[in-house]
This record gives sequence, C-alpha cells and structure tokens, in this order.
Amino acid sequence: MRQVRQLIGAVSALAVAGALAGAGVAAAPAGKSLEARFDAAISAQDQLGWLKTMTSEPNHVSSPHDKANAEMMLALFKSWGWDARIDTFQVLYPTPISTTVELVAPEHIPLGGQEPAIPEDDTSGKTANALPPYVAFQGDGDVTADLVYVNYGLPADYEALARRGIDVKGKIAIARYGAGWRGLKPKLAQEHGAVGCIIYSDPAQDGYGASDPYPKGDSRPSTAVQRGSVEDMTTFPGDPLTPGVGATEGAQRLTKETSPVVLKIPVLPMSYGDASKLLSRLGGERVPDNWRGGLPFTYHIGGDGAVKVHLAVKSDWTLKPIYDVIAVMKGAKYPDQWVVRGNHHDGWVFGAQDPLSGNVALMSEAKALGQLAKSGWRPARTIVYASWDAEEPGLIGSTEWAEAHADELKAKAVIYINTDGNHRGTLSAEGSHDFQHLISEVAADVTDPEAKVSVLERLRASTRAGAAEGENVSRAALEAAEKGGDMPLGALGSGSDYSAFLQHLGLPSLNIAYGGEEQSGGEYHSIYDSYYHMTTFDDPGLVYGTVLSKTVGRVVLRIADADTPPQRFGDFATTVGTYLDEVKRLASERREQDAKLAALREAGAFGAASDPLHPVAAPPAKPTTPYFEFAALDNAVATLKRSAGAYDAAFAKHGADLDASRREKLNALLRDVDQLLLDDTGLPFRPWYKNMVYAPGRFTGYGAKTLPGVREAIEERRFDDANAYAGRIAKVLTAYAARLDAARAVVEGK
Amino acid sequence: MRQVRQLIGAVSALAVAGALAGAGVAAAPAGKSLEARFDAAISAQDQLGWLKTMTSEPNHVSSPHDKANAEMMLALFKSWGWDARIDTFQVLYPTPISTTVELVAPEHIPLGGQEPAIPEDDTSGKTANALPPYVAFQGDGDVTADLVYVNYGLPADYEALARRGIDVKGKIAIARYGAGWRGLKPKLAQEHGAVGCIIYSDPAQDGYGASDPYPKGDSRPSTAVQRGSVEDMTTFPGDPLTPGVGATEGAQRLTKETSPVVLKIPVLPMSYGDASKLLSRLGGERVPDNWRGGLPFTYHIGGDGAVKVHLAVKSDWTLKPIYDVIAVMKGAKYPDQWVVRGNHHDGWVFGAQDPLSGNVALMSEAKALGQLAKSGWRPARTIVYASWDAEEPGLIGSTEWAEAHADELKAKAVIYINTDGNHRGTLSAEGSHDFQHLISEVAADVTDPEAKVSVLERLRASTRAGAAEGENVSRAALEAAEKGGDMPLGALGSGSDYSAFLQHLGLPSLNIAYGGEEQSGGEYHSIYDSYYHMTTFDDPGLVYGTVLSKTVGRVVLRIADADTPPQRFGDFATTVGTYLDEVKRLASERREQDAKLAALREAGAFGAASDPLHPVAAPPAKPTTPYFEFAALDNAVATLKRSAGAYDAAFAKHGADLDASRREKLNALLRDVDQLLLDDTGLPFRPWYKNMVYAPGRFTGYGAKTLPGVREAIEERRFDDANAYAGRIAKVLTAYAARLDAARAVVEGK
Repeated sequence: MRQVRQLIGAVSALAVAGALAGAGVAAAPAGKSLEARFDAAISAQDQLGWLKTMTSEPNHVSSPHDKANAEMMLALFKSWGWDARIDTFQVLYPTPISTTVELVAPEHIPLGGQEPAIPEDDTSGKTANALPPYVAFQGDGDVTADLVYVNYGLPADYEALARRGIDVKGKIAIARYGAGWRGLKPKLAQEHGAVGCIIYSDPAQDGYGASDPYPKGDSRPSTAVQRGSVEDMTTFPGDPLTPGVGATEGAQRLTKETSPVVLKIPVLPMSYGDASKLLSRLGGERVPDNWRGGLPFTYHIGGDGAVKVHLAVKSDWTLKPIYDVIAVMKGAKYPDQWVVRGNHHDGWVFGAQDPLSGNVALMSEAKALGQLAKSGWRPARTIVYASWDAEEPGLIGSTEWAEAHADELKAKAVIYINTDGNHRGTLSAEGSHDFQHLISEVAADVTDPEAKVSVLERLRASTRAGAAEGENVSRAALEAAEKGGDMPLGALGSGSDYSAFLQHLGLPSLNIAYGGEEQSGGEYHSIYDSYYHMTTFDDPGLVYGTVLSKTVGRVVLRIADADTPPQRFGDFATTVGTYLDEVKRLASERREQDAKLAALREAGAFGAASDPLHPVAAPPAKPTTPYFEFAALDNAVATLKRSAGAYDAAFAKHGADLDASRREKLNALLRDVDQLLLDDTGLPFRPWYKNMVYAPGRFTGYGAKTLPGVREAIEERRFDDANAYAGRIAKVLTAYAARLDAARAVVEGK
Repeated sequence: MRQVRQLIGAVSALAVAGALAGAGVAAAPAGKSLEARFDAAISAQDQLGWLKTMTSEPNHVSSPHDKANAEMMLALFKSWGWDARIDTFQVLYPTPISTTVELVAPEHIPLGGQEPAIPEDDTSGKTANALPPYVAFQGDGDVTADLVYVNYGLPADYEALARRGIDVKGKIAIARYGAGWRGLKPKLAQEHGAVGCIIYSDPAQDGYGASDPYPKGDSRPSTAVQRGSVEDMTTFPGDPLTPGVGATEGAQRLTKETSPVVLKIPVLPMSYGDASKLLSRLGGERVPDNWRGGLPFTYHIGGDGAVKVHLAVKSDWTLKPIYDVIAVMKGAKYPDQWVVRGNHHDGWVFGAQDPLSGNVALMSEAKALGQLAKSGWRPARTIVYASWDAEEPGLIGSTEWAEAHADELKAKAVIYINTDGNHRGTLSAEGSHDFQHLISEVAADVTDPEAKVSVLERLRASTRAGAAEGENVSRAALEAAEKGGDMPLGALGSGSDYSAFLQHLGLPSLNIAYGGEEQSGGEYHSIYDSYYHMTTFDDPGLVYGTVLSKTVGRVVLRIADADTPPQRFGDFATTVGTYLDEVKRLASERREQDAKLAALREAGAFGAASDPLHPVAAPPAKPTTPYFEFAALDNAVATLKRSAGAYDAAFAKHGADLDASRREKLNALLRDVDQLLLDDTGLPFRPWYKNMVYAPGRFTGYGAKTLPGVREAIEERRFDDANAYAGRIAKVLTAYAARLDAARAVVEGK
C-alpha cells in the first residue's frame, strides 16, 4: 500500500500540472494530432509501476488487496479528472475452507495443495493470503471412488467411452484441460453420474510440450495448477443467485441449491506433476490415439477398480462484496451516448497477465484521456471506463453492473470495448462486425514496436507467412491479408466481460489483445502469473501494453468523437452470410455422415473391422439430419445484404454533409441497431442469452457459436429447434435491415 | 541344433507317410478343391515349432545359427520333395568390433551397448553371439563434437535449421527415426558436413506413445534400439562392392572406399532412454512445433557448443558368405515359366517377427505344395521357393541372386511374390497392378479367423469403418471398399526383397502381409524381436501366419496353374493414369506455391512476421516450377488405357477358348510385358533402378515414388529431367500398349 500511495502522489502532481497547462486552452484539433497527443501520454513506466503494485499481493475476489487495488484506481481516476466511483454488489463467491485430493489405492499418495515457491519469482512464496488451487462453484463433497480418464471430458469422449463399455457412474472422472471450456467437464461428468471430477493441465499443450517450464521458460511447470470457474456460464454468467438482475443488497436471490449454475459434485484442478501419479497407474484399455497427452507413459482409461482417489472440498459459501470501479467523462455533444470500456481487476492469485496487464493498459488510456481533457479537449460522447471485479468466478462484476444498469445501457450505450490481459505479438480483435472496418483503420495507424510497420501490416504479414508455413489460418483471414483488405474480426463467445453487454443487452462489443509471441502462456490462472513472469516472458517492459493502450484508445476516441459512430453494415451482412453458409454446410455434411454411418451399421462393418482383443462397438444410431426450412433465413440474409450495402453507399456519399437534425435522427436510428439482434425468448435452455447471432457454445464454453439457435440445434439434433430458430433469426435480421433502410432514408434526405 | 534335428526328423517321417499315401494317385482335381487340400496342410503348430527353433539363437548374417537355419530349411525342403540347394555369395558385411557413444560435456555419461535382458523374454539374455546395436555400412570413425537435433534429418529439416542460422558442419547430428528411411538420415547429415550421426527411436511413435512398453505391452521399451542398414539402397541395393552383378567368388569388386553406397562418417542407433540424456541437455532455440517428440521435456536444437558427444565405431569389413536357400518344383506344362516366391531368413538378432514369422509361413506353403505334389498334383509352371539371406543389411541375398540369374529370370520368371514378417490384422498387399484383381479374388476366398468373413470383406469393412472414425484412409481404397470393388494395391518402393526383381529386372512383383492389430510393432530390429514377443503380442498362436500361407499359397497356385497368368491390364492402365494425375497436380501446386512464396518474399512478409527474439529467416528463393512437356505422356497413357481395355475385353471373351498354339503365343507375349517398363538408362543418379513406373524414393527410401523420373524431378526442381523422363515414360508405356495390342490380336485370332 505504500507504493500505491507514492504512485498516486506522483500521478496527482502530474495531473495537477496537466490541469494547469490545459486550463483555458481551446478545444484541441481533433483526429490524428489528438491521437498523437494521446500516444505521448501513454507510458510503459506507468504501466510497470501500477502492475508491480497491483500484483504485490493476491488479489482474488474478496481479498484485501483486490479491494485496495480498486481503491487505488478510484483515487487515480479521480486524480486524472474522471468522475469516478465504486459500485458494489453482494454476490455468491465460494472460498475453499479445505481441499483434499489423494490416491488411496493401490497405494497412498497425498496430492494437491498450494503451489510451491520458485526462487526467481519473488511473489510465488507469498501464500499467506492466497487461495489454494480450486475451482469456483464446484459442489463441495467428500468422495472416494474409482478413477476414469475421460480425455477432454466432452460429449464425444463419453460416446467413445460407451463404445468401449466404460462409464463414470459412481466414479471420479479425470479430464485434461483443453478443447472445450473448463466448466463443461465437471458438468458433463456430473450428468453422466460421476461423483467427483479432477481437471488437470496436460504438458503436451500446457507444459514442456509447448516450451520450457517456468522459470527457465514461460510454460506451466509440473507444480502449477490452473484455477478457474466452473459456474455454468453457458446457462448464464454473473452471480449464480441473481440471474437477470443486479446483485444489489435487496435483490431477490436463489439459493446455492436452487441455482442451476452451481455444480453438485466436488471438483478440483490439478497439476501434471500430481496427475501423472494417478494416470500412470490406471489400467483398463489403452486410450484412443487422440486421447494421448504428453506424459511419458501409455495412457489408459482406468475404471477397472484398481485406482481409487479420495476427493473432498469444503467451501465458505457466504456472500462477498465486489468492487467495480466506474469512471465517467461526460460527452460535450452527445452526453447520453456512451462509449463503455472495461477490463477486470480481480485475479486468481497475483493476476499479473490475467487481468492486470490489460487493466494497466486501460489505466494508461484513462490517464491519457484525462490529460487530453485537462488540456481542453472534451469527447463528443460520454466515455465510461470500468475496472470490473469478480470476472474470474463468472464475469460477475460486469454482469451484475450490466444487469443493474440494463435500461440505461440499452438507452445510451453505443458500444462496449473489452480487454483482459495482454502478451507480446500480433493484434487479435473479436466482436461486432459492423465495427470491423474501424478496427483495421485503427490498426493501420498504430506502429508495431518490433516490426516497425503498422500492426495491421504485421497482422497481414503474419497471417500470410503463417499460411505459407503450414499453420492453421482461416481462409477469410488469408484472403483479406493477401488482398490487403480489412482483417476479419473473430466472433465473440464468452470468457470475458463483454458477455452481458453483447449477448444479454445486445450492445455491439469488441475484445482486443496482442499475443502470439509468448511461447506458451503457461502462467494462466496459477500462482506464477506474476510480475516476474509477465515482465520476463509475456511482455518484457510492457511494450505491447502501450501498443494495446494506443489501439484501444484510438477505438474509444474515434467512436466517442465521430459525428456518427463509424459502423459499416456491409461487413456485418457479409459475415452473417458466411455464417449461414457454414450452417448449411454443417447440415449437409451431417446428412451425408448420417447416411454413411447408417450404411456402415447396416453392413456390420464396425463389427467386422473391430479387433476382438480390444473391441469397440459401433457408434450409436442417431436420428438422421433432415433438410431444414431455411427459405425465410435465406431471404432475410439477402435483404440484409442489400440494405446494408445500400446504406453504406448512401452514407459514404452523404454522411459527411448531414445537418444537425438529420444527424440526430440518424444517430438515434443506429445507436441501438445491434440491439435488434436480440430475441426476448433467448436461446434454448438459456433464455439469458438473447443475441441471435453471437453466443458462447453450449459445448464449447468460451468458443463462439454464431447463429447459435440453428447451429447448435443441428449439432445437437434438436431438429425442430433448428427450424424454429431459423425463423427467429430471419425475423431479427429483417428488422435490422429495415432499420438500415430507415437510416438510409434519413441519409438520403427522403 | 537339437531341436532342429528333431523337427526335421518328425517332418521327414510325415513326408514319407505323405509320399506313400500319394503314391500312384492320379492328378487331383484342380482349383478350389486343390486349394482346400492346400489349406488342410497348413499348420500353425508347424510354424510355431519352426519359429521356436529358428529364433533360439541370434541369426544375423554370418552368424552360425543363420547358417544352421538355412541348412535346416534345405533339409526340410528336400524332405518335402523339392529340388533344393543353397546358393552362396561372398559379400561385404561389416560386423562391429567396437561401438562407443558417450556424453562428454557438460558431464560424462556412457551410453549405448547391448540391450539388457527382460525376464519374461527368455532369449533376451542370450547375447553371447548377438551383435550390439549398430547400423550396417556406416563409415567407422572416432569423433567428438557438438550435438545438433535435426528432427527426422530430411531435406526440409535442414532448410528449417538454415532459416534459424544453425548448421551441422563439424558436428554430430542426432535424428529421430521416422518420416523417411533410416539410411537417408546419416547420408544427408554427411552431405551437410556432419562428422557423425545418431539415430534414435522417439517414444511418441515408437514407445510409450504408441502402447505400453515391452514386456507389459508390445511397444519399444526405453532400452531397445532399432538396428538397421544405412547402405544407400536408394542408389542400389545388394552387395556394395558388386552393383549389377552377382557377388560370386570371382566377381569384379569395388572397394569399401570406392563403393558409393557406404557412408564415410560413423553412425550409431540409440534407445530413447539414452537419447533423452542427450536431448534433455541441449540448449539453443526451441525446436519448431512439428519437431517435438514424446520425451518429457522441451526439445531444443542445440548446436551451441554446450553438449558434446563422443562417437566411435570400428568394424570388421571382411567379406562374409551368405546362404540363399532355393527350392524348385518343376512345372509339368510350362517348365520354363517360373513363379518365384521368397522371404528372407536373416534377422538383426533373433528376428522372430522380422523376418521369421513370414519365413515360417513360406515354409508352410512349401510343405503343403510338397504334400500336394506327393499326392500326384504337379504345377503347370515351375515354382521356385527362396529363403534369402542378408536382406537386413541391404536386400543382399535376393539382389545378388537376381543379378547372378538375371538372364534366366528375365527369360523365365512370370512373377516374384514376397513376404517379410507378419502380424495379426488385415490384409496388406502391394505390387504390380496387373495382378490387382487376382489379389482381391484370392482375398475373397480366404477366411479371417477373427471376423469369420473373407479377408477381402474384412479389409473393406476396416477401410470403411476407419474412414468413418476419421483415420487417414486413401480415397481410392475407400471408394473401392464402398463399391465392393477390388481393393487397390499399394505401389512398391523398397525395404524388402522384391526390389531387384521389380525395379532392376522388371518382373511383376507382389508383397503381402497381415497387420494392424499389433499395437505398435515396437520389437522392430531390436533384441526383443523374439519368439515370446511374437507369440504374445504380434500374432499369438501364429493364427495369421496360417492365413498368410493360405493367401500367398493361393496366389502361387493360381498363377502356376493358370492357362494364362491372371493379369488384368486395365487396372494397371487406370493406376498409371492416377499417377500421372498426381504428378500434374504436384506440378501445378508447386507452381502456385512458388508464386505465393515469391510474392511473400517480395513483400517482406516473413521479416514482418518474424519474432525478433526468436528470428526465423524467410524460406530460401527457389527456381520457379515451369509448365512441363506432358503431351507425349498424356498420349501414351491414353493409348495404354485403350489398349489395356481392349485386351481385357478380348481376353474375357475368348481367353478360355484358345488353342495350344495361340495360347503359347499369347503367353510368350505377356510373360515379359512388365519388363517393357524398364528403360536401360535407369533413373537419374541411380541407373540400377530401371523401372519407369515404380521406384523407392530418393528422399523417402522405403516409400514408393511412382513415375519417379518425372515426380522426383519436379520435387527436386530438376526441370530438364522432368521433361526428359516424361518422354522416356511415354516410350515404355507406348511399347507396353503395343504389346497388349499384339496379344489382343492373338486372342482375337487375327
């Protein structure tokens, strides 16, 4: 806390100087010279100093240091001239009272517990206030049972197990991290009758297989454990007790027992050092080839009664307060149009990379915007900077805030812009495709400090070179890179604070980071996600921390100051068109596969092919994928493409010359156009998710599923849903197109 | 030797009984009832007995037991009624006097030496007469130098090293087994300036990554070493001193120093137990992702001077005698048309799977044919059974025999049929495509003992089920399996005794085996390739040994007894057509890649994409692939397809009704038709290889390259060669088509 005060002191002095310098100065010239002044105020030294302070103690939700960080930011934001406050909520957040995991047969080996200190990493021994490895919102319990290796623990893995005559009923499932979101693994284990679940980090992808283990390199050492949340965020994120509403003091609450997003079985995460002691002892059949990880023995499925594990978790389930830091800079021209920008501040332990490397970039931006403001500039729109608490357990800080302020946000917010940690490397941007062109425009104006070309040029070069080297590069990205066109945005799934804004409220959202040159990112959610790890491996000198600030700052400035926010709807329409193509291809591939599989079953081919010494049953029979009612959706996409193209063309021609009244009308029509993608019914099994274009996958978790109502229905063979949601999507897209037509009429003065 | 005598005694008694029973019996009915009688004479107990005896001592070339095995077979063949003899050659075959490999810096660790005994495997301790792990035809020497990991040690790997600023000049290269033939690795290391080479078995594919290490499972344990030959067989196989002629006593000989197929640098193979001690200590850059193996640490390239290895090999380079067992059963009708059938008998140590599991199947066939003969049947054509010596060091026994008998073979042989070890599983057949249909016909008549369907049906089922499970299945095989058509033969490269027959003499050849249900085949070329390993894991009870006998026996019988050998030339023509398509696709893909790469270099994309902390230079500029002169080849293939189709149709119509004179004329025209595929100039850099359709790849070794003169010229950017060989291939195919036209004229009575 001493360092914090010093920093605030130093910053305040600067701020005062800035305020003095800026006093009475007229509004600075907008555009690029403004951005150059913004850039000049971005300092890696600032970021390093804040990061050092904020990572000096564990900063998980409800820890004293997490609160101290919030308070430090509050003071800093204020010192920079922002109208800042802390918004507090009371949320369910379990902290472990005890965690036990041990091998009990064929021999006794205690496992688990806190990660050990590594001498080079001077915070790694500061465990007094640190929580041990655990996963939030597992179910507590005390079980002893057989162990079964379930690969990634996803639906296909349970099918493979069943074909080998193995189940997890009454047993403990051990799954490796990867392929799908963490929380799906224990959820599916529970649904298949397991009494407990262990999730471990396999070294093939997350350890020595990726790079030298820490501290020699940046990958996960054998002692490191990936903590995380297993709240069922695919159903809804945020406080498990208050879906859809803010977790204010007086809010109506579910109980832990009635909340559908809290698991019922005990679950613990595990290091590969510990996991190897379990997996190497498993008997039973050898695993299928693609289940093998990187441990130096032959993987077996187990489940034959030879290996027994004792797993017990007991948690403190009291409500805990969380602290969202909210800073507002009022817009001079459109105060009721908000540009919202956020990053969270809670970590699992020290949280240097995740989330604080992104949070200090956000702080740099806020400081620079403050300096601009003190020098006389004012944004046209209101800018809201937020540093969320409790992202880690389930996007809680942002979700509760979004739910609590839902009406205001739906009435005022223009966009939500998120970051969540950073590494060195190339630009990665995901989000609402009407802002795709803006991102490439911004990226063309930010210089990469390594390659000395724009970050856009570097991304294109890296995409093309990657494809030439045989890396897995998306075709759309490669085509764009080759043509020198705008780089496509990825679709947003979940895993960070944009979810409530995009998928519940329908605000257009962006998520921005740099990365790819870290060798492995093996610090993730471990005690070794520290200042030392971050500044030694992930982004030495926080060079890319400043690049992130300059990138996001430009996005904020350009949206905040534009006469009309820089959206290009043709990009959105084209992208939705490719999603529809994908969904149709999925359906026809499924039909073809279904027919092929039925023929093979009919012919007894699986039986004839099977090795009698290691029998594998035929895949189960499944209902055949039919043809779907896509006509309305086809028409809607065609309409959307026409309307978007026509609007973009009209705006390109007349957009600069609108009078104030038409401008106001136009902006009113466009401000909430993305909210038209919501359908209030929401998605099947999860009405909280209302966006008909973007959602996290029910069986991918973080990974996006676009046109989810149809895509997932086909994947999960809910064929009636596929038809129904094709209609719902058609409806929202048609409304979106109609809004664009109305906007075009305004632009064209009709 | 005691057991051998007992066996011969027992067999002789049986043989006498058989001879008595058959005495005076008239010629048995031909065809299926003959095959049923053949099957009845195939005994797994026989095979187990022979295998036990033959694997009781080390049987490498020049070992007493290898000679004893030959002599035992000689006696057995004679006892079964064959006209048998042993043909001897004097060949260069180095045996190690001393092998040394040790880590000398940063610390001293002795490595290498004989593989240790495993209690379950009762021959694994019999090391008195066993050679230690080594590779034949390395160059001897004594070097101490830095170590560099070169991945598989193939050309692309050296390009990747160069892009990272690393070379192997004056250093020792350590390569993992896999991706290309063993001998290419030290050859390329030597060409790149390395002073020594180590080849090790990585556990990812050949160890615990595949299945449980022996003796728990069948995969390579950490102590096992893959021996082998590094004679440059891609230039020519056989005795290194007598290319093109038999290594008879008086043959003119090169010296070891002047032979182009003996390496100049010392080379040793290594276990992964030993290799991990070297690789785990290497510094320098982290390897590219696809260079990673299965050892539990991060792989580095080394070459930074920190790890030094001492490698020394000294060999006895005297000539050694080898013993080919040759058994002849004279044809009753066409004594000057030979069906040649072989398998080798030398192993690296005990050689149970490789080669003796195939050799005892061959013995079963010979015994059964002998019984048929003693019961009165006589083959129409002469049958020659051969058990080769010295296959392991370089196909020496078969090559010297083929070279010594070249004129007679070219004048008389109808086909060469090879096996070389066996496992349990599905049928695998490769060879000359005019015999493709015969193989499927035979496979339809052999029952799989596990699946209780024909081995053809099982292969189809396994192909279809494999594709459905996402395995890598060739499209041609899948289409054939789905249609219930003939299963395509693979093309023959090298790695067993068919090479001289097919690629030097132009005889049509086949190679047949069962496999795929062994879990890993980790015994390969180690001391653990033993009776215990074979009968515990590879083919318990030698059940598939009997299936192999029944399969190959049918092929032999059907060719030996046919009025005209069962060839179908349309299959060959179609297959050559697909090879030409592949070659053209290769050329256009290369053109496209070349253009893309040039554009990327031009744009500086590799520089912009490169991580400055881990720089990788752009791929080197290469001459652009031009368009080739394919017209003559296109015309030749079209002509071949027409002629083959017309011949097949004519033969189907009239083939059964030919009078003796036309039959004789026809058979004379077809007997050597496959020899027309030879061009006496041979292939570039390797005139010994004269077959213009089938060859082992210069940079794959065992793997086949079809239309090699063109395909490899494109791959290696020898563009003039590509044009020249397109012309040569066109010429041989046109001659082949003309011969078929002549044959059709005979069939049609014109």
